[in-house]
Amino acid sequence: MIVVLAGGVGAARFLEGLVQVVHPETITAIVNTGDDMMFHGLHVSPDVDIVTYTLAGIVDESQGWGVRDDTIATLEMLATLGAETWFRLGDRDMAFHIRRTELLRAGWTLSQVADSFRRALGVGVRLLPMSNEPVATEINTPVGWLHFQQYLVQRRAQDAVLGVRFVGIEAARPSPGVLEALQAAEYIVIAPSNPVVSVGTILAVPGIRDAIMAARAPVVAVSPIVAGAPIKGPAAPLMRAMGIEVSARGVAHCYRGLVDALVIDRADATLAEDIRDLGITAIVADTIMRGPVEKRRLATEVLAAAKTTLRQRS
Amino acid sequence: MIVVLAGGVGAARFLEGLVQVVHPETITAIVNTGDDMMFHGLHVSPDVDIVTYTLAGIVDESQGWGVRDDTIATLEMLATLGAETWFRLGDRDMAFHIRRTELLRAGWTLSQVADSFRRALGVGVRLLPMSNEPVATEINTPVGWLHFQQYLVQRRAQDAVLGVRFVGIEAARPSPGVLEALQAAEYIVIAPSNPVVSVGTILAVPGIRDAIMAARAPVVAVSPIVAGAPIKGPAAPLMRAMGIEVSARGVAHCYRGLVDALVIDRADATLAEDIRDLGITAIVADTIMRGPVEKRRLATEVLAAAKTTLRQRS
Repeated sequence: MIVVLAGGVGAARFLEGLVQVVHPETITAIVNTGDDMMFHGLHVSPDVDIVTYTLAGIVDESQGWGVRDDTIATLEMLATLGAETWFRLGDRDMAFHIRRTELLRAGWTLSQVADSFRRALGVGVRLLPMSNEPVATEINTPVGWLHFQQYLVQRRAQDAVLGVRFVGIEAARPSPGVLEALQAAEYIVIAPSNPVVSVGTILAVPGIRDAIMAARAPVVAVSPIVAGAPIKGPAAPLMRAMGIEVSARGVAHCYRGLVDALVIDRADATLAEDIRDLGITAIVADTIMRGPVEKRRLATEVLAAAKTTLRQRS
Repeated sequence: MIVVLAGGVGAARFLEGLVQVVHPETITAIVNTGDDMMFHGLHVSPDVDIVTYTLAGIVDESQGWGVRDDTIATLEMLATLGAETWFRLGDRDMAFHIRRTELLRAGWTLSQVADSFRRALGVGVRLLPMSNEPVATEINTPVGWLHFQQYLVQRRAQDAVLGVRFVGIEAARPSPGVLEALQAAEYIVIAPSNPVVSVGTILAVPGIRDAIMAARAPVVAVSPIVAGAPIKGPAAPLMRAMGIEVSARGVAHCYRGLVDALVIDRADATLAEDIRDLGITAIVADTIMRGPVEKRRLATEVLAAAKTTLRQRS
């Protein structure tokens, strides 16, 4: 049993590699839902969708999100009818949000919906939204607090970041199976996702951090920062705003005391010693996942690291 | 001011002709909402949509409903996710239902939504849903009461019709502007729609029949039955179940006391005298609307009839 804490694109790509080297049914992904937002009255779960689409082989690989070769007839007509359409939702993509919203209104939980969707698409990996309670990641900027999607997509991460908050986090509970999966895990992996607003959100759900600390499994994180910059996404300003250096070393600081090992890119090999000084085993690998070969290799290296890593967190 | 009581396809085609002979802004259509139904958690208003799409020039003319050249990517993915998809909703079509549902949840009325949509599409005709309260037309059959759409679309009108009811009709009020439009109308036209479940539903909204009776305008109906059969749709079994002959004469019986004149097809000229015996002026015309020319001609004849018809209803 491998448990993976997952954000969006980076985590999805990592999981794509992982399912090549272990049976998908032995993997549980705990996925960030702080990016969830209502569009057109429909509940959109960007990170859960990215992971689902990617593992189902239907993701638009050039974007890393959305469904491949999707059309936008619905969105264009919504624009004609006066709706705001800065969040690009394709027609096939829209079906997930329509159905999710219908099922949630009928009393289903986000977990039940996610499980139903991944099974319908033949995804073997168990996908657990971090929580069934609503959590909204918001970014404080000079124009005020913005939902993460507004900050990232609508305003293209152009605003200075003054702070981050997870609205609703106090009332959120880990979704069913999350704590049990962490307790039973053989290995726990933190995917190469944004440490502030993807992994950070998952870790902020009351009970999850404690469950990781108490777990018998070694915890291995993969740095999403390579050579001082994120592979994708707005990690840099968010890390800086939190006073965290935008580097693999900064990532290590984020996860200090929580992880036993951190997989960093070959480009960051010189940071290994600093990371070890934080009580974290630094493992140097090729972490940039350009294609299937690199994805598989990274998964293999992370698993090997997990197998040899001593539990040293405290 | 011309007020038209409207169902779906027949009414939409009639209105297409009418806007060619009078200014669209002088026309108010009161549209049946008894066919409204939730699909995938979205509020679908089939008759309002058919009229809107037709007048906007985007209707799929071969079907008479839906948007021309529409795709069904969303519906196909909904099917993959386990949803029932017997009601064919295209991708552009879906945008209307998504937006309507969002606006209704935000507190808008059906009237406000319909007005917003027709303006967004440049439709000059004022479209008033018959009521903002929910009304559901249901058909009693050997397998039980079915929503009209289930009876017509899902089960293809295969069941014997034992009865018809309009659930919610007692609590329904005419939507804002309906009674005022009828009172101020110069002419009132009942479009060639199903007299039992399209026009019948509108007339069953408390207050609407009385307002028509009290109106100073002549009331002219167009028979949807030609040579003993409806042009389109399930009028025959529904009329029969109500004990109404499936003929222009049967239509006259339906509207007896309510209309001053009935426009019937040339094929039914021999019924004119029977209709006159019911106290209704029978006007013989070409009522089958094959194309723009026929639509325009019918509208012209109906208007001419309205101008010369004496108010004789009681």
